[in-house]
Amino acid sequence: MVSSASSSSQHDAEDSRNSSPVAFTAVTIDGIFWGPRLRTVREKTIPTMYEQMQKSSYFDVSQRNWNAAMYPVPYVFWETDITKWLEAASYSFATQPDPALDAIMDTAIEFMLSLQQEDGYLNLWFTEIQPDKRWSNIRDFHELYCAGHLIEAAVAHFQATGKRSLLDAVCRYADYIDTVFGTEAGKRRGYPGHEEIELALIKLYRVTGEERYLRLSHYFIEERGQQPHYFDAEARARGEDPTDFWAKTYEYNQSHQPVREQHEVVGHAVREMYLLSAVADLARELPDPSLHKSAERLWQHLTTKRLYVTGGIGSSTTNEGFTSDYDLPNLTAYAETCAAIGLILWNHRMLQLDVDRRYADLMERALYNGVLSGISQDGTSFFYVNPLESHGDHHRQGWYNCACCPPNLARLLMSLGQYVYSTHDADIFIHLYLESSGNIQIGSQDVALKQETAYPWDGTVRITVSLQEAAEFGIHLRIPGWCREAQLTVNGTAIALAEQTHKGYTRITRQWQNGDTIELTLAMPIERIYAHPAVAADSNRVALQRGPIVYCLESADNAVPLNALRLPATSSLESVFEPTILGGVTLLKGEALTLATDIWTDGLYHNQPPVCHPHRLVAIPYYAWDHRQPGQMLVWIQEA
Amino acid sequence: MVSSASSSSQHDAEDSRNSSPVAFTAVTIDGIFWGPRLRTVREKTIPTMYEQMQKSSYFDVSQRNWNAAMYPVPYVFWETDITKWLEAASYSFATQPDPALDAIMDTAIEFMLSLQQEDGYLNLWFTEIQPDKRWSNIRDFHELYCAGHLIEAAVAHFQATGKRSLLDAVCRYADYIDTVFGTEAGKRRGYPGHEEIELALIKLYRVTGEERYLRLSHYFIEERGQQPHYFDAEARARGEDPTDFWAKTYEYNQSHQPVREQHEVVGHAVREMYLLSAVADLARELPDPSLHKSAERLWQHLTTKRLYVTGGIGSSTTNEGFTSDYDLPNLTAYAETCAAIGLILWNHRMLQLDVDRRYADLMERALYNGVLSGISQDGTSFFYVNPLESHGDHHRQGWYNCACCPPNLARLLMSLGQYVYSTHDADIFIHLYLESSGNIQIGSQDVALKQETAYPWDGTVRITVSLQEAAEFGIHLRIPGWCREAQLTVNGTAIALAEQTHKGYTRITRQWQNGDTIELTLAMPIERIYAHPAVAADSNRVALQRGPIVYCLESADNAVPLNALRLPATSSLESVFEPTILGGVTLLKGEALTLATDIWTDGLYHNQPPVCHPHRLVAIPYYAWDHRQPGQMLVWIQEA
Repeated sequence: MVSSASSSSQHDAEDSRNSSPVAFTAVTIDGIFWGPRLRTVREKTIPTMYEQMQKSSYFDVSQRNWNAAMYPVPYVFWETDITKWLEAASYSFATQPDPALDAIMDTAIEFMLSLQQEDGYLNLWFTEIQPDKRWSNIRDFHELYCAGHLIEAAVAHFQATGKRSLLDAVCRYADYIDTVFGTEAGKRRGYPGHEEIELALIKLYRVTGEERYLRLSHYFIEERGQQPHYFDAEARARGEDPTDFWAKTYEYNQSHQPVREQHEVVGHAVREMYLLSAVADLARELPDPSLHKSAERLWQHLTTKRLYVTGGIGSSTTNEGFTSDYDLPNLTAYAETCAAIGLILWNHRMLQLDVDRRYADLMERALYNGVLSGISQDGTSFFYVNPLESHGDHHRQGWYNCACCPPNLARLLMSLGQYVYSTHDADIFIHLYLESSGNIQIGSQDVALKQETAYPWDGTVRITVSLQEAAEFGIHLRIPGWCREAQLTVNGTAIALAEQTHKGYTRITRQWQNGDTIELTLAMPIERIYAHPAVAADSNRVALQRGPIVYCLESADNAVPLNALRLPATSSLESVFEPTILGGVTLLKGEALTLATDIWTDGLYHNQPPVCHPHRLVAIPYYAWDHRQPGQMLVWIQEA
Repeated sequence: MVSSASSSSQHDAEDSRNSSPVAFTAVTIDGIFWGPRLRTVREKTIPTMYEQMQKSSYFDVSQRNWNAAMYPVPYVFWETDITKWLEAASYSFATQPDPALDAIMDTAIEFMLSLQQEDGYLNLWFTEIQPDKRWSNIRDFHELYCAGHLIEAAVAHFQATGKRSLLDAVCRYADYIDTVFGTEAGKRRGYPGHEEIELALIKLYRVTGEERYLRLSHYFIEERGQQPHYFDAEARARGEDPTDFWAKTYEYNQSHQPVREQHEVVGHAVREMYLLSAVADLARELPDPSLHKSAERLWQHLTTKRLYVTGGIGSSTTNEGFTSDYDLPNLTAYAETCAAIGLILWNHRMLQLDVDRRYADLMERALYNGVLSGISQDGTSFFYVNPLESHGDHHRQGWYNCACCPPNLARLLMSLGQYVYSTHDADIFIHLYLESSGNIQIGSQDVALKQETAYPWDGTVRITVSLQEAAEFGIHLRIPGWCREAQLTVNGTAIALAEQTHKGYTRITRQWQNGDTIELTLAMPIERIYAHPAVAADSNRVALQRGPIVYCLESADNAVPLNALRLPATSSLESVFEPTILGGVTLLKGEALTLATDIWTDGLYHNQPPVCHPHRLVAIPYYAWDHRQPGQMLVWIQEA
């Protein structure tokens, strides 16, 4: 029996164990769950997105119906569809080189490079459409956000191909940005309205070793929210009243106060995630524990007040973001796919600061639920918004006018391997379980770890250790928070978990021999999940979870109004793997009830409670919904 | 034991018993419930509204910050604040003449008359602000709506004072409107975007006997929704594309099809109510049963699909109106006070077409709950929106920019007497029970009915019949649908209810003697009300009702999060009259549970159901909420 969360006494940043991720290029993922999915992204999603961009004249500005009068429109950051696609394509190329892909990446890069100005400036909109408006509204116009995605693409492309074409251009651009923004006299004391460049600059610093990029990132984080407020001054410079800001509050972009003073996750959810990812990155690079503490404080707030059970975040359409504590409506949940992706990016960085399963648990929750729901099984249609209830009118689309989520999904999934392992000195940490082969360097020793598992459908993971010569090092296995009973053996000999487990990771340190086998068995009973009573939308309701998978009901399996269905607290549920349904999923089945409506023929209200009839409930994984005939969907089932 | 609704076989318009209301001037209302309330409206609300209008320069256009560029703004129909106030003031004057009120009414009328044009046209906005835009946009600009409230004010003022000043002006205006709109060559085939003039013209016809007004009203109803669509043509005449209509659909103003073809209540709720009030009025005046059938069909739809338990209607802020069947959210309920008032206006007219308690029940439900909530106990602050749940941030205000509800409340309550009785030949129908004295004419006989009762707190009503000489006639007493056990005596002798009851009214026909006494005892146990299972917002929840009063919980009495409170199905509840609380109310009390939150310290989700602690529940009448310290409010309580 393992406690389902680290104790709060362990949430101390001082007690952290940091580690560095093993690159995704060193981890080959396959198996019944991820094998087909990743092939689909590589073979369908990435080519389809390129075709969509060609069809929409992304690379031919003259054919586009651009014009400045269209503001406010999303088009101002359309170039990030290209750069996020480039990043995803680079990751695909890195693990499976393909000359045709190489060529179209070069074409896309050539297009981007054609936009670069003498001074290094490189932005599609402000070069082609509004050249006189450069840096005039970094609160709303996404200029630095675009630069961030450009930088991430350049780093990925360089690492995948060794080509410096985009990287060199991007360094020139970053050098130029560094001359524009900063605290020094003559520079603008600005920072982006949409965070992103901060984490990108850290990647650029890490790949180039150029400390200016780290300092610029640090400057953007430290300057954000300082008084006098840059966005006030910028608005006045445009002749506008700063209080006319359409979003009404600087919480929208987390610039209402300096991040060290923030105690709540607020505003636009993707922005918050990118901000906190950069804060966590900086906490790794700088000798400043207060950054880690700030991030941890906001993590606590998010996870105790503003998180959907699917790992979705940001409950409101209005600000694409956070509202108030416990306000987690299901039908109208925004829970943008990109925000759940951002949650993974941030938690991956928190995990690097401190190997604590809380972060890996959350990363896994988002991955298998609120992120994976964003992409169809055939890899060609997408959810932007991921509600936890539907009346049957919410469906994935092939492309969006604001198409941020599809390429974001592709870049996450094409680099999924980086989330599996991390190392620190003579220790290997295993964060995710999936059928895979990883090559990990411990000192001068190459260690191959082969995972064999039907995870997430089955909790048994067999890990074979291969190495040239025997060596002593630690392997730390995450015991997921959702698992209440785990067993572990090495070469058939049981390991006592409790003694060796710290922050949810069980450590096995020994002289490892080639061929040693670890077997981890994670019990995966069906769990009923209850939300905090203050979450009004979930009260009297239960969610079903098995392993990391959150379930939902669909009309396709339950031919009754889903909100007229009651799951008795005493009903037992069974899980059944169905290889032919929805690409192969474990279904949950059990006895439930439905309410008869016959006493309400004369009106909506009646002084007798409803009569119940038996109903055979069937639940499917949440991520797999909306693949059959349109109908209702419901995560939080009413309990009777 | 009385069945709680008429059987559906009785819902046949052919089987109707029509009757005519007894004028409010013939019914004096007093007693612990209504006495102080009506005095407050007379002495506080009406003077305060006049002061508010003076403060806002209603009567001095030159001081107002009007200008045409402000469109779209609500100001275009601001004159209806004046005319609805005039109507309310006239009703007040009619039952309690006051020379000072007479004088200020004359001042307001003088102001309105000063706007009248040579041709009879009389509108504040289009005379002062946009004289070139007369009749250019009757879809959105409320011109005919304003005319309707002007006519209602004029009729009320004439009936109250005998003065023809406003009535004559209004007849000239109506005559002019009759030359502008109609099917004859040269006339515009238009009708109002906001219904109101239709029912007003019928009042004008009834007071003047001029059949042209009846025909014009009939024309507006019949023309509405015909093709080619007038609002399409009107938009094109303005150079606009009709499909750019901001509301997106003509359902918004019920002009999507002719009313005889409509099967669902749709769009803006107040407009729907005013439309259906006029349809019911016309069904009384014209030999055309199809109008009654259309109204009845829409009544069935409303009451089985789109009605709040408080009598509130219109669940959405977006269109101030109806959405889809069973979509009755509580926290975000719009349920405009004016729409609940409109529901009373309509049901009062349906009741005149057919004495069926269904209409009186609904009138009573709206009156004691969703209407009365709209006005504070001191009569000086108002709800525009009446949600069934609040987080503590919704409060009555002293005035609204769009101040339609305060004067609407005042005119309803100042004419409340007209809803109590109706007559047909030798039959008197009693619809509402309240402490009052009524003078009713049956043939040449004057009959005085004195009701003594503590209703709605107590279900015993003692009715004394006074008359000059003995006479045979029928008295029909409504047995409310909420009442499952009623007893009736005449001079102490029991009457068998079942035999004498038709459509919920029990008939006593006898030779009445002066001093005869009827005693009606309506059992008022506390009822648990359950919503149709398709109403997702209320599922697993229960509302409490006692007599006609719907209850709610407030933080002021229940110091726990209201959505963490559970009322066990087996808990018994008691009612206690508390003379000192909230002006004297019956409270409900009982044993409930609250959910402990201590297992959720580490996150929002947990695999154990919440632990419950006992909680002493106290519920107050819904209408009385928001009179103490701000806090949560909840009508639909979770049942355990």
